[in-house]
Amino acid sequence: MRVVQKFGGTSVGSLERIRSTASLIERSVRQGHETAVVVSAMSGETNRLLGMARELCEQPQARELDALVSTGEQVSAALLAIELHKRGIGAYSYTGMQAGFFTDSRHSRARIQRIECKGLLEHLERGEVPVLTGFQGVDERGNITTLGRGGSDTSAVALAIVLKADICDIYTDVDGVYTTDPRIVPTAQKIECISYEEMLELASQGAKVLQNRSVELAMRNTMPIHLRSSFEDVSGTLVTSEDETMERASITGVAYNRDEAKITIRGIPDHPGIASDVFGPIARTDINVDVIVQNVSEDGTTDITFTVPRGDFGPAMKTLKDVCKEMKARDVKGDDTVAKVSIIGVGMRSHSGVARQMFKTLAKEGVNIQMITTSEIKITVVIDEKHVELAVRALHSAFDLDAKN
Amino acid sequence: MRVVQKFGGTSVGSLERIRSTASLIERSVRQGHETAVVVSAMSGETNRLLGMARELCEQPQARELDALVSTGEQVSAALLAIELHKRGIGAYSYTGMQAGFFTDSRHSRARIQRIECKGLLEHLERGEVPVLTGFQGVDERGNITTLGRGGSDTSAVALAIVLKADICDIYTDVDGVYTTDPRIVPTAQKIECISYEEMLELASQGAKVLQNRSVELAMRNTMPIHLRSSFEDVSGTLVTSEDETMERASITGVAYNRDEAKITIRGIPDHPGIASDVFGPIARTDINVDVIVQNVSEDGTTDITFTVPRGDFGPAMKTLKDVCKEMKARDVKGDDTVAKVSIIGVGMRSHSGVARQMFKTLAKEGVNIQMITTSEIKITVVIDEKHVELAVRALHSAFDLDAKN
Repeated sequence: MRVVQKFGGTSVGSLERIRSTASLIERSVRQGHETAVVVSAMSGETNRLLGMARELCEQPQARELDALVSTGEQVSAALLAIELHKRGIGAYSYTGMQAGFFTDSRHSRARIQRIECKGLLEHLERGEVPVLTGFQGVDERGNITTLGRGGSDTSAVALAIVLKADICDIYTDVDGVYTTDPRIVPTAQKIECISYEEMLELASQGAKVLQNRSVELAMRNTMPIHLRSSFEDVSGTLVTSEDETMERASITGVAYNRDEAKITIRGIPDHPGIASDVFGPIARTDINVDVIVQNVSEDGTTDITFTVPRGDFGPAMKTLKDVCKEMKARDVKGDDTVAKVSIIGVGMRSHSGVARQMFKTLAKEGVNIQMITTSEIKITVVIDEKHVELAVRALHSAFDLDAKN
Repeated sequence: MRVVQKFGGTSVGSLERIRSTASLIERSVRQGHETAVVVSAMSGETNRLLGMARELCEQPQARELDALVSTGEQVSAALLAIELHKRGIGAYSYTGMQAGFFTDSRHSRARIQRIECKGLLEHLERGEVPVLTGFQGVDERGNITTLGRGGSDTSAVALAIVLKADICDIYTDVDGVYTTDPRIVPTAQKIECISYEEMLELASQGAKVLQNRSVELAMRNTMPIHLRSSFEDVSGTLVTSEDETMERASITGVAYNRDEAKITIRGIPDHPGIASDVFGPIARTDINVDVIVQNVSEDGTTDITFTVPRGDFGPAMKTLKDVCKEMKARDVKGDDTVAKVSIIGVGMRSHSGVARQMFKTLAKEGVNIQMITTSEIKITVVIDEKHVELAVRALHSAFDLDAKN
């Protein structure tokens, strides 16, 4: 079997952790698997480096920041290779540049364009372990680039695809994806197998175990991801295509996100193009708008309500007050104490009545729904933040996700 | 003017020092000089990285060590570029790989073979500052290499040569080369101008201000080096070709080295090839033999005496006892309490009587000379270590090197 193993910052966060991680790799090699490795920087290192840069300059050059922080993975890759060598395993560290991870030139948020990895295949064929720095690459002009926070997951999946690996193991500090946040619902269960689509919806709802780009990439290339713990030797969650998953219950998980604020522009004179009049200025300030609801009222005006990340609430309100004046709308109202709760599952395509059951459950608990949005495999409601735990617990029970002891 | 400025570890040892160093570069740029920069790792960083590697493994792979420690310069180069950018100077960090510093594949002691730096010239022509990582390069197969400790000096001189710079400024934590160690002779003077040959002899005698490889490289290409302090804004020592130096006194400086031990093999049956019989086994243990004296005695045997670095005394004695037995020599004697004192100066070529004056001066002070060796521009004596200060002071005075107040 050919496998790519990715280890995050906590898995290489100290020399002790590097030794444990080397043991996991060693086991894979001794079992006869062709094993390639992708590592993040030692936990805390990227922030240490960024801290120095920011102390010198509020807005450091993006090109230089990338050159600076990319050293973090280079250090952990070299140290891990040294530890593997000690164990008699031929291991070779590769920077993004050495491995030929070519990206575009958008520093700090580059996208991988192609990977040249002929040398890597030869290592695998000889039973050697290439240890690649995640998160980074090089543009066509030879500048060092980085893929943005969490980019190592994407590096690992991209490498697995190019190497035609059988699976991409992503080791992290959690042992898998849960039906919901176990801090809120102690009876939450680990999901053994989840589809790419469900994983994407879960991640966008705050369950940040895998970077979305990596899941999208895996989905487009049908590369299975095994998300598992580098601390405990247990099976984690397999992220794979829907066909591979078994006959399923209607709902796979319940997600929530408190990092939300809600803004309503009321009394907008209704005419074609108002949405772009509202969201154009917001987009230009780089604010991500999420759930959007538009109602037409009777007097020829319309209301638009949408959510933004809570940190962007202030700037968004400021921008919209100007927009409101220009559009001759009545007023802008905001609320930064809302939250989103979602139920997610490919099963809802074939199970009818899922939405009805969700709304009934929330009503029974006295949770008022402020906004609703739906997709093929997800129903999201915006509610008052204070009801989050109540709503999550109620939905987890109602859809039969609680673990049975 | 086109200038390469090299800054050592103490010159980039903290964010505060990086700011001061940026000021020196900024001044050069504002004066209209085309300025390229070479930096070392922040002081202490290389040892921190090596420490982690050694904690994992006693003998880490050389390839991985190079990948590991090369991050040190990458960090300081990026930080310095960030600080320069803040001051409105277009600055771009380059790793050895990015700048095309191609070396052979001898990890941790690689030699530069060629430098591809077309992009760098374009920066200079636009008034921008390329900031290169010293000490490192890349071999033809794309492996990261390092040039060995102090290799950044060599990087800087090599870059100056390839860029056809007018001068290579090497900024360090001393303000120049002195006629002798000011800790021993308070009246020692800073040498304004010194020839490459003298600098090489001084360095080999323990005055480790510049890496010898960098001086040799500068000499072969007649690249003047200005050795100066990054802490004080004063002129330092210009290292240049002999023709450029003014009419000189007979002696330029007095050097010493305590790190010496003396070994004598007595009663070796004299026949051709005994030197290689003695020094072959020593060379195989990687021990550097220095001053060598051979006497022929009357009974058809010979004595050979030589010096080794004091740290190699034990291993050398051990090797030589076996050699002695094989060669049927009488015995081996050693003394690890000796030191070398040298007078150095291109002027001794044209001033007669320099050697006589040296021996007379030492005799007058009651210093017994155990061995003598001479070159074109240097006379070295091996003496009892306890006489070092006395000898250095006496010679410094006798050759009229004391500063006049």
